Amino acid sequence: MTAAFPLTITLPVAAAPPSLGDNTADLDRLKAACAAALPPELAGSPLRVPFARMASLAAQFRAAGFKGWALAHNLPGQIELIDFLPEEPQQLPGIALDLGSTHLEASLIDLRSGRTLARRTALNQQVEYGADILTRIYFAAKEESLRQLQQAAVDSINGLTAQLCREAAVLPEAIRAVVIAGNTTMAHLLLGLSAYHLCREPYTPLFNAADPFLAAAIGLRLHPQAMTWLLPSRGSYFGGDLIAGILAVGLDRTEQPAMLIDVGTNAEVVIGGGDWLIACAGAAGPALEGGVARMGMRAAPGAIEQVSIDRENWRLTWRSIADAPPVGICGSGLIDFAAELYLARIIDLRGKFQAEFPGQNAAQRQFVQERLLRRGDETAFLLTEGVSVNQTDLDAMMRSKAAMYAILETLTAQVGLSFGELERIHVAGAFGEHISPRQAITLGMLPDLPLERFQPAGNTSLAGAELLLRDSGCWEQAKAVCRRITYLELNVNQDFMIRFSGSRFIPHTDPGRFPSVSVFR
Amino acid sequence: MTAAFPLTITLPVAAAPPSLGDNTADLDRLKAACAAALPPELAGSPLRVPFARMASLAAQFRAAGFKGWALAHNLPGQIELIDFLPEEPQQLPGIALDLGSTHLEASLIDLRSGRTLARRTALNQQVEYGADILTRIYFAAKEESLRQLQQAAVDSINGLTAQLCREAAVLPEAIRAVVIAGNTTMAHLLLGLSAYHLCREPYTPLFNAADPFLAAAIGLRLHPQAMTWLLPSRGSYFGGDLIAGILAVGLDRTEQPAMLIDVGTNAEVVIGGGDWLIACAGAAGPALEGGVARMGMRAAPGAIEQVSIDRENWRLTWRSIADAPPVGICGSGLIDFAAELYLARIIDLRGKFQAEFPGQNAAQRQFVQERLLRRGDETAFLLTEGVSVNQTDLDAMMRSKAAMYAILETLTAQVGLSFGELERIHVAGAFGEHISPRQAITLGMLPDLPLERFQPAGNTSLAGAELLLRDSGCWEQAKAVCRRITYLELNVNQDFMIRFSGSRFIPHTDPGRFPSVSVFR
Repeated sequence: MTAAFPLTITLPVAAAPPSLGDNTADLDRLKAACAAALPPELAGSPLRVPFARMASLAAQFRAAGFKGWALAHNLPGQIELIDFLPEEPQQLPGIALDLGSTHLEASLIDLRSGRTLARRTALNQQVEYGADILTRIYFAAKEESLRQLQQAAVDSINGLTAQLCREAAVLPEAIRAVVIAGNTTMAHLLLGLSAYHLCREPYTPLFNAADPFLAAAIGLRLHPQAMTWLLPSRGSYFGGDLIAGILAVGLDRTEQPAMLIDVGTNAEVVIGGGDWLIACAGAAGPALEGGVARMGMRAAPGAIEQVSIDRENWRLTWRSIADAPPVGICGSGLIDFAAELYLARIIDLRGKFQAEFPGQNAAQRQFVQERLLRRGDETAFLLTEGVSVNQTDLDAMMRSKAAMYAILETLTAQVGLSFGELERIHVAGAFGEHISPRQAITLGMLPDLPLERFQPAGNTSLAGAELLLRDSGCWEQAKAVCRRITYLELNVNQDFMIRFSGSRFIPHTDPGRFPSVSVFR
Repeated sequence: MTAAFPLTITLPVAAAPPSLGDNTADLDRLKAACAAALPPELAGSPLRVPFARMASLAAQFRAAGFKGWALAHNLPGQIELIDFLPEEPQQLPGIALDLGSTHLEASLIDLRSGRTLARRTALNQQVEYGADILTRIYFAAKEESLRQLQQAAVDSINGLTAQLCREAAVLPEAIRAVVIAGNTTMAHLLLGLSAYHLCREPYTPLFNAADPFLAAAIGLRLHPQAMTWLLPSRGSYFGGDLIAGILAVGLDRTEQPAMLIDVGTNAEVVIGGGDWLIACAGAAGPALEGGVARMGMRAAPGAIEQVSIDRENWRLTWRSIADAPPVGICGSGLIDFAAELYLARIIDLRGKFQAEFPGQNAAQRQFVQERLLRRGDETAFLLTEGVSVNQTDLDAMMRSKAAMYAILETLTAQVGLSFGELERIHVAGAFGEHISPRQAITLGMLPDLPLERFQPAGNTSLAGAELLLRDSGCWEQAKAVCRRITYLELNVNQDFMIRFSGSRFIPHTDPGRFPSVSVFR
């Protein structure tokens, strides 16, 4: 275990003042003092001073009597001196950011103590130019539009940074490092780079791994020498957010095979088995993330996240996030609800509403009659005043759950594993936080494994960005992960299509795979 | 002997186009192709792409069908890709520049063939703000004045570059590397950095070694990614021009002790002995460079550079540079002339005019009477119509020659050598080109050694800059030279003062040191 050094480091430096016997120049004196102050793990790294900082560094070092604290970027293969302070800095704030297509989430972290000073989310202002990524890619075809999208992302980050700074009483100019994890399209748009080829066969990004660059180069309002580190991507559909996730849950270092599931616009899944990593992504997410279901919404206050139907007394209860007045249903709520509907036999194994079925009792019949309403051509189940779920919503959910299971199955089969061999299944994001694995198993969306194997992992994209901010060693680790990952393309995968068809039943065409789930014929 | 690579290199690259089986991003594909194309000596160097070039490099590589020629800066410890061309470039022009306080001299060199395409000199426009360096340092005390001096240097370089480019039919935007050698003050002013401490004890520069930086950062009009390499300095009075000179004459690699003499505003002298280098600088130059003598001028057309007095028939002949009408006398001309005056006994061993002396013949007396004229308080010797040398001029010359000899003697003694042990004495610049070592020995300015040991070395500052431009290995070599040099401070050196007094006679207080010179008592 080697020591971890953050992306920007502080070096206590002290040098003898110049004399006739040693009139080494101020900057060269500073460099020598910094070289002497480097920890053993970084010793011998070449020290650079960016042109723009030569005058101020020399002046500050001299003014401080040739001793104080140097701040330096811990870049790959070199140390770049960017600042000098006469007193030991109490804090050295940095930003870790998950740049999502809809939301940003960021932490303000003190690189000296490792402490999180503040954490917040904000909307991605790019949404104004298109809710989904494909719309933005098409929009970005014009240079001017690309600039607008870039500016929207930059504005979003600047706004969120300003909020974090206010909260922690830190000046944005004090921030000298920012780590950003986002999907490949977000990364391209943030850098103002063409995303044209991302969505066109053979889905080639303009870049996978960007070298660290000045935050000012894209208009981030931080310290003028603040460096931006962008988590590298594996491909058009496997971005830096996922690479960050792999680092965050340690999938590249696991001894037993484990899985990471990240459901966003796509469902992205990785299995790591110690010396290998395999990944794929597929369109399983929309219905689960509020993108398709009519009443769907993101997991946010007022979203119904949990539903239960008491099948003795035929009463329905629900809970909304933050106990706020209900305004819609989030992905995990929909899964919960659909599982309850299935167990109450209000939907059949195809996910279709059924008002009646053989052997139905009177209480169930009355319950259904009160809530299953016909509206025009559509049947909808009334969850509570103003929130209902109709057949279209359920159909979308069924496609998503089928896609999810087919993805998991295809990927696992690809490496010759059974689900049972997965020691742990990390479920990232709001989906992982809110979903009930039990209900997802009931629907046949997640494999029928002991519940303790499912682990909510939180925002793994942000967590990975935080890791890198605190430990520069993660930079090479992230690049190594990119090189190691085998990416399985599902678009052209016949097995996936067959598995998808087999998964469009509750729990599955082959119920033997779900021994814990009741099957109603 | 390892291969030499210029500061900017061309790499032939070829990669398979992206496919579903390999959809590595364009830039990462280019980097991989470049890594594969690196010569063995550079293999494994990390490859970087500056942020500003990401979009264009990817687009150019793609447009060219993923094959062509990459241009890269061969930076210390890393390769920076800056351009991509579909066709093999016929030329890769770079600039080597000697940034003198009065004049600039530059070469335009093709880095692919090593060929010199053009060479030119220009005035340093800083002269407008002060002929001598101290005036400029004082002037630069105000930030605004410092900017003016910087701009004057930048304008001078841009102007000279434009001329070179026109001459060689090259576009300035095609130039991707510029190497600049100048004294420490010139280097500071060019970078817009305070020169305040350079002339104040303990004479500490703001920087000795600047890391390579973008030429655009100081306003040089070249390729937007052109890199500037500034030869490092050893101290306030031993600049990158001298370090370049040491490289140029190979003083850091000589097997037998050898010396480099560079006479500019100061006389700067270095002795190299294989594993050691010792240097000093002193004010020996002005009278020799046209800075003090009333009729003095730089070695330029119209400067009298050679004088002889026929001591049989008492006729004086002279030659001017380029055979132009005489307008003054340059340093080498003054030395030549003074030696002739001494041999003709028109000046005595103190360098004072004497109209008469014991044993004088009539012809000599008549010669002197015609030419040695009294003008007011001053005696002047008429060289030709409009050009004369007076006692003040001679006195200045005598101080310079004494200082020069004392410097050479002090430095040689410091390392325990006698002059005879110096295998070669490289004499740089116009001084080296025009001076007659025989006459300088007669005056007691240069040691009494066989004439073939004195070697005119040309503009060694420019030659060293050219070496670096063609061979990036010279960068570390130059820095190593800076570390190895022992700098002898003459300002506080008692031995030097004693030797200076002893040298204020022709040839010397101790004529035994100059067996080849006639001594007249």
